[in-house]
Amino acid sequence: MNILIKDILLYDKTVDVLIEDNKFKTIGKVDTTKTKIDKTINGKDKAILPAFYNLHCHAAMNILRGFCEDLPLFEWLQNIWKKEDTLKGEDIYNGTRLAILEMIKSGTVFFADMYWFHKDVIRAAKDMGIRADVGLTFMNKLDRKTIDENFDFLNNYSKDKNEIVKVSPTPHAIYTCDDKLYKECYDNAKKNNLFLQTHLCETEQEVNDCKKAHNGMTPVEYLDNAGVLDNNTIAAHCVYLTENDSKILANRGVVLVHNPCSNMKLSSGVFNMPQNRKYNCKIALGTDGTSSNNNLSMMEEMKMACLLAKVSFKKADALTANEIFDIATKKGAEYYNINAGEIKEGMQADCIIVDLNNERMVPNYNIIYNMVYSADSTCINGVICNGKILMEDRHVDNEQEIIEIAKRYNAKN
Amino acid sequence: MNILIKDILLYDKTVDVLIEDNKFKTIGKVDTTKTKIDKTINGKDKAILPAFYNLHCHAAMNILRGFCEDLPLFEWLQNIWKKEDTLKGEDIYNGTRLAILEMIKSGTVFFADMYWFHKDVIRAAKDMGIRADVGLTFMNKLDRKTIDENFDFLNNYSKDKNEIVKVSPTPHAIYTCDDKLYKECYDNAKKNNLFLQTHLCETEQEVNDCKKAHNGMTPVEYLDNAGVLDNNTIAAHCVYLTENDSKILANRGVVLVHNPCSNMKLSSGVFNMPQNRKYNCKIALGTDGTSSNNNLSMMEEMKMACLLAKVSFKKADALTANEIFDIATKKGAEYYNINAGEIKEGMQADCIIVDLNNERMVPNYNIIYNMVYSADSTCINGVICNGKILMEDRHVDNEQEIIEIAKRYNAKN
Repeated sequence: MNILIKDILLYDKTVDVLIEDNKFKTIGKVDTTKTKIDKTINGKDKAILPAFYNLHCHAAMNILRGFCEDLPLFEWLQNIWKKEDTLKGEDIYNGTRLAILEMIKSGTVFFADMYWFHKDVIRAAKDMGIRADVGLTFMNKLDRKTIDENFDFLNNYSKDKNEIVKVSPTPHAIYTCDDKLYKECYDNAKKNNLFLQTHLCETEQEVNDCKKAHNGMTPVEYLDNAGVLDNNTIAAHCVYLTENDSKILANRGVVLVHNPCSNMKLSSGVFNMPQNRKYNCKIALGTDGTSSNNNLSMMEEMKMACLLAKVSFKKADALTANEIFDIATKKGAEYYNINAGEIKEGMQADCIIVDLNNERMVPNYNIIYNMVYSADSTCINGVICNGKILMEDRHVDNEQEIIEIAKRYNAKN
Repeated sequence: MNILIKDILLYDKTVDVLIEDNKFKTIGKVDTTKTKIDKTINGKDKAILPAFYNLHCHAAMNILRGFCEDLPLFEWLQNIWKKEDTLKGEDIYNGTRLAILEMIKSGTVFFADMYWFHKDVIRAAKDMGIRADVGLTFMNKLDRKTIDENFDFLNNYSKDKNEIVKVSPTPHAIYTCDDKLYKECYDNAKKNNLFLQTHLCETEQEVNDCKKAHNGMTPVEYLDNAGVLDNNTIAAHCVYLTENDSKILANRGVVLVHNPCSNMKLSSGVFNMPQNRKYNCKIALGTDGTSSNNNLSMMEEMKMACLLAKVSFKKADALTANEIFDIATKKGAEYYNINAGEIKEGMQADCIIVDLNNERMVPNYNIIYNMVYSADSTCINGVICNGKILMEDRHVDNEQEIIEIAKRYNAKN
């Protein structure tokens, strides 16, 4: 399908954008006599910008939104786990569809996911037309049969380059997986050319327990020693890192996923932005799951990341709007080997269409400043992912059905 | 005008709400045969909640949104001040209307304002139908004629109890006003039964400079010594407070306005929530001006306040959703002597109408959790202030005109 976006603002100039199949074909002036156009979008009073890439979340947890709050970590986790034990595949499908609806409504076109019932997560992502890396969670407590089935699933999953819903082995964390299981996951990822997702250094306790158990090694040293860190490793949180940890992660090319809302809400701690930037670590952005956020807005996450860095490190430029926008868009795509994240000819057609008539987008001295510090989801009028329109004039296919199903979970317990 | 809201969710029960003139007349079952109804709102799939009271902002600065960002404080201020010097009364009117539009769209019905050109701010507030306390800014650098004119204006401003746009003397801060000018403002406030707004203890430098200049007294001690602190004092920021400062402010009944976004964005510091709660200080919430936020959403401010307290004081319950919702609604109204902030018969009819079909409001285990941690402005369908509908189905009168005018400020410099 060929989509023409007429007269839309791209930073400081007005252009036409032609999307052919899944790519930006022309940006500039489009000769409509020479190209068959299936769909035209009027770009008047609108701007085109890269879409967002959410590198860490637990999408299905959307159906647990607001289930319990403001409790000390252990008590909170007990409640969540008890509730999670009751969830079935269909619940995961429903929760993930709700999550994806929310992502699309706030301009996100990709999510890296970690949860259970991977087949239902994959089904939801495919039904909604969004990019995803669906993690299959590994823990030592799983029986060997399940572990092997998961590895088989990863071995046999589509290797089609055009498939936008991918999978990855996801050893949960160093306190639920030993180095042997990490190595099995790593070898599977290597063999199948997949990413490996994990949680890393989220809390102080995780670091202290690791040092006690493993001859003083930090979690980063422990995993590096196991030989499982490289540029296909996606490490969520990374709150508690020594200088040496940051150096190791930078040298190995590991992607550090900053989750400011979650780290703040769970009182985990503050991501060391200056230290990780000093060592040129790859930094991406994620929302984490709804239970610790409680939404999936990458816009809110961008603002939170900037404000947290500024107040924590006492510098107004500890993290700038331009830097975090780059991290949330271009960098996220780049680190996940997606040829997207910029509005450029030849790149895959992922973008958002921004409403310049929204009260939060005026005046428009600088659209990036407005997007990071002022905007909310009302400012996003449309979303295109891989050349397909996922939202137009804030309408997403089947949204009312998804919401009606989500409402079934309203009842207490 | 009598408004009937039919079958709307009020926490856990479905009710009818009858608004007669500016008050909630009946909440429960309304006999429509006995009451003339001018307007009916269908409450299906909607909830009614208190609206927000923003106790500190500089509304007109909306026309400077995103003008310059991410600069060290002094350089940033130089840029802002230079730009501010070019603003005229009509610019203030335009900026304030844009600000109020944004407030209404995000559920706010009252703002305490500090800026220049008070007549234009008052005109904007009256035109938009919102409650306000418009501060007249005082500084020693103003000439005596201007100071006297301001006091005259305060003396002669309407004393009508039904007037929802009020005024107050606003000595800017201790580094721009001496104790003599504070006392003049205080005496004027007493005489006219007005509040007194000021900035207080926003930065570490303010405290250090004060101690040097005033025999080791903190700003709070300095103002207490000047005899200008009481329960009509609205003190914005209050970031740097000693334990003794918090005690003094609590004893005097001063309202501390927490501005988390601004304090984070300007790297000012972290409001000491546990200490101020320990001494039972009156705590309210504000957005500050757009230049240091960059929006006026009290919803975003509530989430920021909770997350900042949780991460800074390492307790998941350092500030809970229920507490901050109370602060942003009921407490704000109460501290400003507005008989509103709750959905109760006899109280003034301020409320928001929440869209329960929004993707961020499902599931609805607890509406307050959803409002504080998940919602954005898309979730607010309607706003009623003092018995008047300011927004219905997300539409505000004259919004397109306000935005078109705001766009005139787009051009650089």
